[in-house]
Amino acid sequence: MPIARLQKFKLGGFARLLFCWKASVYKLLWREVLIFLLIYTVISLVYRVVLPNYPNVRENFELVAIYSYDYTAVFPISFVLGFYVTVVFDRWWMQFKAIPWPDRVVNNISAHLNGADERGRLLRRALARYVNLSAILIYRLCSKRVKKRFPTFQHLVEAGVMTSKEKDIIKKLPTDNPKYWVPCTWFVNLVREIRKEGRIESDPAMKTIIDELNNFLNKCDELYGFDWIIVPLVYTQVVTIATYSYFLACTVGRQYLDPSKNYTGHSFDLFFPGFTVLEFVFYVGWLKVAENLMNPFGEDDDDFDMNWIVDRNLEVSFLAVDEMYDTKIPVEPDPHID
Amino acid sequence: MPIARLQKFKLGGFARLLFCWKASVYKLLWREVLIFLLIYTVISLVYRVVLPNYPNVRENFELVAIYSYDYTAVFPISFVLGFYVTVVFDRWWMQFKAIPWPDRVVNNISAHLNGADERGRLLRRALARYVNLSAILIYRLCSKRVKKRFPTFQHLVEAGVMTSKEKDIIKKLPTDNPKYWVPCTWFVNLVREIRKEGRIESDPAMKTIIDELNNFLNKCDELYGFDWIIVPLVYTQVVTIATYSYFLACTVGRQYLDPSKNYTGHSFDLFFPGFTVLEFVFYVGWLKVAENLMNPFGEDDDDFDMNWIVDRNLEVSFLAVDEMYDTKIPVEPDPHID
Amino acid sequence: MPIARLQKFKLGGFARLLFCWKASVYKLLWREVLIFLLIYTVISLVYRVVLPNYPNVRENFELVAIYSYDYTAVFPISFVLGFYVTVVFDRWWMQFKAIPWPDRVVNNISAHLNGADERGRLLRRALARYVNLSAILIYRLCSKRVKKRFPTFQHLVEAGVMTSKEKDIIKKLPTDNPKYWVPCTWFVNLVREIRKEGRIESDPAMKTIIDELNNFLNKCDELYGFDWIIVPLVYTQVVTIATYSYFLACTVGRQYLDPSKNYTGHSFDLFFPGFTVLEFVFYVGWLKVAENLMNPFGEDDDDFDMNWIVDRNLEVSFLAVDEMYDTKIPVEPDPHID
Amino acid sequence: MPIARLQKFKLGGFARLLFCWKASVYKLLWREVLIFLLIYTVISLVYRVVLPNYPNVRENFELVAIYSYDYTAVFPISFVLGFYVTVVFDRWWMQFKAIPWPDRVVNNISAHLNGADERGRLLRRALARYVNLSAILIYRLCSKRVKKRFPTFQHLVEAGVMTSKEKDIIKKLPTDNPKYWVPCTWFVNLVREIRKEGRIESDPAMKTIIDELNNFLNKCDELYGFDWIIVPLVYTQVVTIATYSYFLACTVGRQYLDPSKNYTGHSFDLFFPGFTVLEFVFYVGWLKVAENLMNPFGEDDDDFDMNWIVDRNLEVSFLAVDEMYDTKIPVEPDPHID
Amino acid sequence: MPIARLQKFKLGGFARLLFCWKASVYKLLWREVLIFLLIYTVISLVYRVVLPNYPNVRENFELVAIYSYDYTAVFPISFVLGFYVTVVFDRWWMQFKAIPWPDRVVNNISAHLNGADERGRLLRRALARYVNLSAILIYRLCSKRVKKRFPTFQHLVEAGVMTSKEKDIIKKLPTDNPKYWVPCTWFVNLVREIRKEGRIESDPAMKTIIDELNNFLNKCDELYGFDWIIVPLVYTQVVTIATYSYFLACTVGRQYLDPSKNYTGHSFDLFFPGFTVLEFVFYVGWLKVAENLMNPFGEDDDDFDMNWIVDRNLEVSFLAVDEMYDTKIPVEPDPHID
Repeated sequence: MPIARLQKFKLGGFARLLFCWKASVYKLLWREVLIFLLIYTVISLVYRVVLPNYPNVRENFELVAIYSYDYTAVFPISFVLGFYVTVVFDRWWMQFKAIPWPDRVVNNISAHLNGADERGRLLRRALARYVNLSAILIYRLCSKRVKKRFPTFQHLVEAGVMTSKEKDIIKKLPTDNPKYWVPCTWFVNLVREIRKEGRIESDPAMKTIIDELNNFLNKCDELYGFDWIIVPLVYTQVVTIATYSYFLACTVGRQYLDPSKNYTGHSFDLFFPGFTVLEFVFYVGWLKVAENLMNPFGEDDDDFDMNWIVDRNLEVSFLAVDEMYDTKIPVEPDPHID
Repeated sequence: MPIARLQKFKLGGFARLLFCWKASVYKLLWREVLIFLLIYTVISLVYRVVLPNYPNVRENFELVAIYSYDYTAVFPISFVLGFYVTVVFDRWWMQFKAIPWPDRVVNNISAHLNGADERGRLLRRALARYVNLSAILIYRLCSKRVKKRFPTFQHLVEAGVMTSKEKDIIKKLPTDNPKYWVPCTWFVNLVREIRKEGRIESDPAMKTIIDELNNFLNKCDELYGFDWIIVPLVYTQVVTIATYSYFLACTVGRQYLDPSKNYTGHSFDLFFPGFTVLEFVFYVGWLKVAENLMNPFGEDDDDFDMNWIVDRNLEVSFLAVDEMYDTKIPVEPDPHID
Repeated sequence: MPIARLQKFKLGGFARLLFCWKASVYKLLWREVLIFLLIYTVISLVYRVVLPNYPNVRENFELVAIYSYDYTAVFPISFVLGFYVTVVFDRWWMQFKAIPWPDRVVNNISAHLNGADERGRLLRRALARYVNLSAILIYRLCSKRVKKRFPTFQHLVEAGVMTSKEKDIIKKLPTDNPKYWVPCTWFVNLVREIRKEGRIESDPAMKTIIDELNNFLNKCDELYGFDWIIVPLVYTQVVTIATYSYFLACTVGRQYLDPSKNYTGHSFDLFFPGFTVLEFVFYVGWLKVAENLMNPFGEDDDDFDMNWIVDRNLEVSFLAVDEMYDTKIPVEPDPHID
Repeated sequence: MPIARLQKFKLGGFARLLFCWKASVYKLLWREVLIFLLIYTVISLVYRVVLPNYPNVRENFELVAIYSYDYTAVFPISFVLGFYVTVVFDRWWMQFKAIPWPDRVVNNISAHLNGADERGRLLRRALARYVNLSAILIYRLCSKRVKKRFPTFQHLVEAGVMTSKEKDIIKKLPTDNPKYWVPCTWFVNLVREIRKEGRIESDPAMKTIIDELNNFLNKCDELYGFDWIIVPLVYTQVVTIATYSYFLACTVGRQYLDPSKNYTGHSFDLFFPGFTVLEFVFYVGWLKVAENLMNPFGEDDDDFDMNWIVDRNLEVSFLAVDEMYDTKIPVEPDPHID
Repeated sequence: MPIARLQKFKLGGFARLLFCWKASVYKLLWREVLIFLLIYTVISLVYRVVLPNYPNVRENFELVAIYSYDYTAVFPISFVLGFYVTVVFDRWWMQFKAIPWPDRVVNNISAHLNGADERGRLLRRALARYVNLSAILIYRLCSKRVKKRFPTFQHLVEAGVMTSKEKDIIKKLPTDNPKYWVPCTWFVNLVREIRKEGRIESDPAMKTIIDELNNFLNKCDELYGFDWIIVPLVYTQVVTIATYSYFLACTVGRQYLDPSKNYTGHSFDLFFPGFTVLEFVFYVGWLKVAENLMNPFGEDDDDFDMNWIVDRNLEVSFLAVDEMYDTKIPVEPDPHID
C-alpha cells in the first residue's frame, strides 16, 4: 500500500526532508556531480600545474575563463527552468488524474445488474473484468512496470484477467492500432445482451452503465494521448542546452585564477568551488524534477506504482460485484436516533 | 464554527494583519530566526574576538565572507520559491475542493426515498450514515486530527457512525487496501434492495442516487490520490537546499568586515544584520507557506478543521433525511405576490 | 444596473484610465502616500537641519542610508507581488463564478411544474423563494452589504423572502452551523409532495429539478468554502512584510545625502524623491490590488454588488415562474421563412 | 468567413509576421511612438540649443537625466506586464468560450420535436429563433458592433429575429434589469405547451431540451458576468502607471549627455535613441496586447466578429430545424463494407 | 502508430535527448544560426579589415557596439518568452484535447441501436460514418495534411467516407459558412427516423445518443474556434521583435573590439562568439517552441498526425458498430472466482 505521507514538524519542517535518500536529489544527482567535479578538477590541475610553463596559453585561458564567467552571470536559466518545470508539473498531475479507476462502473454494475444466481455472478464478474482488462491494456502501453509484468497477451491469460478465447479474438482483430478499447466494445455488446435478458431492468440503468463505461474509456484515451503526444522535443532540448552549457561554462569560468594577476573578482583562491557545486545541485536538480515528472509511469522511486493500481482495482472490482454483492447488513437504529 | 473572515480597512489594509499572532509568520518562524541569529552571532564574535590574533586566518575568513556574499547576490531563490509556492498553492485548493460533502446525496435520498414510517426513517438514516462513514474512513487516512479522534474502528462504533455488525463485516473483508469504499458498496446494495421494495419508486430516481453516490466516492478517491501521490521529494529538496544554503552563506557573507580593510561594500559596521533578518523572515517565511499548504490536513492553525467537517456533515445529514423529512411548511402567498 | 464597460480608444488606450477616480489607485492610496512622504520629510529635515551639528551621528546615518539603499536594490518584491497577486486574482474570479444564480432552477420549475391555477402559482413562487432565500442566507455570511441589509431573520420576513412560520422553524432548528442549506431541504420536501400530487408529471422532471437544486446548493457550499478557508495568513504577511519593509528602508535609503561627501550615486540633491513616490504608488498599488481582490464581498467601489444580485434574482425568479408563466406568444411565421 | 490561419514557414517563421500591417503592433502604436519621439526631440533640442547658455540649469538637467536613467534601470516593468498580460489573456479566452452557440439546442429541437407539417415547422423555427434572440440581446450589451447593428428592439423586428408582438411583450416587462433571459422563458413556456400537445413525445426528451436551454442561458449569464465584472481598475492603473512613467523617465534619462563631461555611460552621442524606441515598441506593445484582449467585443481588427456569429447562428439554426429537417438521405452500403 | 515514448536513463537523462535530430532544435534552427553567423562575420571582417583605414568611422562603430552591448544586457527577453511560451503551450494542449474522438458515439450506437440484420448494420455504419465525416470536414479546415489528402469533396467520396448523393446534398446547401456540422444534422434526422422504426427502443437511449452527438459536435466547434481565433498578432509580433532585435543588437554589440583601446569588458579577442551562439540557440530556440506549438496541425515532425487519427477513427468506428457487433464471447468463470 503505497502511502507516502508528509510529516509536519514544528521546527525545521522541510529541512528534515533533506536527510531522505529514497527518491532524493542526492540519489538522482550524485553521478552528475562527480562528473562535474572531475572535469573541474582536471581543468584546475592543468591551469595550476601545466600552464605556468606556457604563459601565453595561460593568459588566453584566463581570458576565456573571464569570458565564461560573464556568460554564467547573465544567463537566465532560473526563468526557463521555472517556466518549464511548471508546465511539466501540470502535465504530471493531469496524467495522474487520467488514470482510469473502475469504481464507478462496478458500482453501477452492482446496482443495476440483478440476480444473485450463478449466471448473474458470472455476468457481473465478466463486465468488471473487461474494464480492468481495458485499463491493463492501456497501462501496458504507458508503463514499463506493467509491460514487464504482462509482456504478452498470454501473461494476461495466466494472470486470469483474460480467457484464452478472448485472447484469440483480440489477436485476430484486423487492426494495427492499439487494442485497449476492444474489451470496452465487448462490455457494450454484453450489456446489450443482458438488457435483452432482462437482468438490467430499466432503460435509465442501461444508459447509465454505458455512460460510465464511456467515461472509463475516455480516461484510457486520455492516457493514450499523454503517451502519444509528449512535450515537444525542442522545448526539452532548449532547457537542457541552457542548463548544461551553463555548467560547461562554469567548469572554466568558476576556476580560481591566480590572485596575483588582479583580475576583478579573482582576489583569492579557495581551491574547492563550494557554491558552484551548490548551484549545480540546485539547477540540475531542478531539471531532474522535470525529468522525473515527464514520464511518471517508469520505475523510479517517485513514479506511480501502476502494478499496485492493477491489483487494487481487480480486487476491489471483484469484491464489489461478487463477494459483497449479497451481503445483507441489517438496518438498525443508530445511536444518534432521537 | 470555523469562520475566519478578512476585515477590510480604509487605511493600512493588510498592514494590520501584521499584528496577528495565530497562524502568523512569527509564530511559525521565531525558532528558525533565533537559530539563525545565534549562528550569526557566534561567527561574528569569533571574527571580532578570536581572529584578530590570527591575521592569516582572519584574512582567509574575510575572503570566504566576500565569496559567500557574491553567491547570495546572484542566487535566484525568489524565482524558485515563486514557482514552487504557486504549484503548491494550486494543489492546496484542489485538496480543499476534493473534500466530499454529503449534501447532494442526502438531498437525493430525501427526495426519492419515500416513506415517513419507521422503516423509511431507518433506511434513510442508514444510507446517510454510510456516506458519512466513507468520508470519515478516508479522512482517517489523510488527517491527523481525525485519526486521533477515531484511532480504531471501535471508536467509530462508539461515536455511533458504525454499528458493531458493520465493524465485524468490514474487519473481515479480505483486502489489505484502504477500505473507505466499502460503505459505498453497502450503500449500493441497500439501494438495490430498497428499489425492489418499491420505496424508491422510479428508475431515474435510482439512477440519480447511484450517480451522486459515485460522485461522492470519486471525491474520496481524489482525496486518497492527494494523500498517496505527493509533490515529488526532489522538488521540495531542491527548493529547501536553495533556501537554506542561501542563509548558510548569509551567516558568513553578511558579516560586517573590518571597515579599515576597505573591502568594497564593507565601509561600515552596524553589528546587527537588520535587513538580513528581514530577508530571512521573507524567504524562509515564503518557504513556510509551502510547508503549511503542502499538508493541510494537519493540526496547524491554518489547517482544515476536519473534525468540524465530520460533525457538521453528520448533523446536516441526519437533519435533512430524518428530523426535517416530514416538516410541512404551509405554502402561503408571499408579500411580493401581485 | 451595475454595468461598467471598458471604453476602447484609438489613441492612448489605458492611458485614459489614469484619470478615473472611482475605484482608482489614487483613491485607495493617497493616505499611504501622504504618510510615506511625511516620514520621508521628517527624516530629511532631521538630516539637513539637526544632524550637521552632530557630525558623528550624521556619518552613521549616512552609512545606514547606504546600507538601506543596497537592501532596496536587491530585494525582489516584484516577484513575490507578481506571484501573490496572480494567485489572489484567480481566487477572486473563482469566487465570482461561485455565486449561485437561480435561473436554471426557476426555468425547470416553470417547465415541469404544471398548473396555472392559484395553488400551482403558490407552489412555484414558494420553490423560487426557497432558492433565493438559501442564496441570501449564504450572502449574509460572506457579504457585509447583505448582512447590513438583513441583519436578522426578521428583516428577511419584512422583505418578503421568508414567512413568519418559516422564520420560527429555521430558528428552532437544533444546529449551531450555518443554516443556508435549510431552505434547500424545504425545497426538496415540497417537491416530493408536489410529485405525489401529480403536478410534476414525470420522474425525469423530478430528477432534473432535484439535480438543479443540488447544483445551486453546491454553489452555496463553494461560496461558504471561500469564506471559511482564506489564503493562509502567513502568505499575506510575508508579502506585506516584504512591501512595507522595502519602503521603510526607502524612507532612509532614498534620502539625498550631502553631495560634497562623494558617496557613489549621491552626486546631486533633488529634495523631492519623485521616482521613489512612483515606485511606492506602483508596488503598494500592486499590493492594494491583492487587498481589493481578497474579499470582493465588501463595500468598496470594485466589490461585487451583492444587493443588486439579490434584487435581480428575486425579480427574475418571480417573473419567470409566475407573471410570465402563462404568457401565450402566438407562434407566427418569421420573415426568414422561405 | 473570418478564417485567419497562421502559415508555417521553414525559414524565418514568426519573422514573417513582422511584415503584417492589419492588427499589427505598428498600426496600434505608431501614434504613441511619434508622440514619444516628439517629446524626446523637444527635450533634446532644448538641451543642445538652449541650455548651453545656462550652465547651471544644464548641469541640473544632467543630474536629473542621470537620476531618471537609474530609475529606468531598476524598474521591473517586464514582470508586472508579464503577470498582467497572462491574467488578461486567460480572461480573453474564457470570454470566447463563454459565447453561446445554439447548435446543441437546435439539434435537440430537431431530434425531439416531431412533425413535418406546417405547425411543427413553425414551432421549431420559433424555438430556434428564441435562443438566437437571447444571444443577440446579450451581444447587444457586450459588443459595440452588434449594438450598432441593432440599436433598438425595432431593428430586431426588422431583421426578422423578433415579431412585433414579442417586441411589445418584452418592452412592457416591468424590470429595469437586462432582459436577455426573457426569450429563454418564452422558450420554456412554449416547450411546456408542445409537450402537452404531444409533439415532444417523451419526458427524457423534454428534460434534455430544457437542460440544453439552461446551458445556453448559462453561457449568456457568463458573458454578462464578464461584461459586468471587469479586471479591477486599480490593477490596470498600476500597470499603466508603471509603463508610462518608465517612458516619461526615458524621455529625460535616455538623452545623450555631453560626452565631454565624462558622465559614466555617456561617452558618446548618437542623436537618435534607437534602442529606446525598440524598448518602447516592446513594452508599450505588450501593454497594447492587454488593451486589445481586455475587451474583445469591440471593433478592432483582432476582436471577435460578433456580427458574423449572429448571422452564422441564425442561418445554421434555421437550416437545421427547418430546411434540412426532412432531408431523406438514402442509407446505402459504403465502400468500406466487407 | 505514432508512439514517441520518452526513455528514462539513470545517468544523463535529458542530456541524451540532445543527440536527437528529428524534431530537434538543430533541425529547426540551423538556417537561422548560419544567417546570424554570416552577418556577424561580415561585420567582424569589415571592422577588422576595412575600418582600420577610417579611424573616425571605426571609433563611431565601437561606440555603437558598446551601446548595443548595453542594450542586450538589460533587455528582458527571457521573461517575455517565458510568459508567451507558457500561454502558447496551454493553448497547444487545449487544441489536442479539442480533437473529437468518435468512441463514445459509436459505443452508444452499438449499445442502443438493435438489429443484427442487414438494415441494422447499414444504419449503424451510416451513423458512424457521419460523425467521422464531420470530424474530417473540420480537420480539412485546420490541418494542412488532411486538406492535402482530401482537397475536394470528390476525394471524400473516393475514400468512401461520403456517398455521391451526400456530396450533392452538401454541395447544394445554401450557406457560405463551414459545413462540418451538416453530417451531424443528418445524424440527428436519421436517429429520429430509427427511433420511429423502433430499432432504438427507449427514450433514454435516444436522449443519450443525441447528447453524445452534441458533445462530439461541440469538440468540432471548439477546434473551429481555435482555428478562427488565434493568439492576437500583436502579442506574437512583440515577442518576435524583442527576440530578433536582441540578436540584431548582438551582431554589433558582441563584436570583439580592439583590446588595445581598453574599453571595459573588451580586454581580449576570441574571434568566435561562442556563448553568443549558445544564447542564440537558446532564445531563438525558445521562440521556435512557440512557433511549433502555435499551429500543431501542420506537417512538422512534432505536429499531430491527423491522417493517422482519421484512419484510426474510421477503422475503430466500423469495427465497433459492425464487425464486432455480433461477436459472442462466452461468459466463463474466470480463474479468480472463489
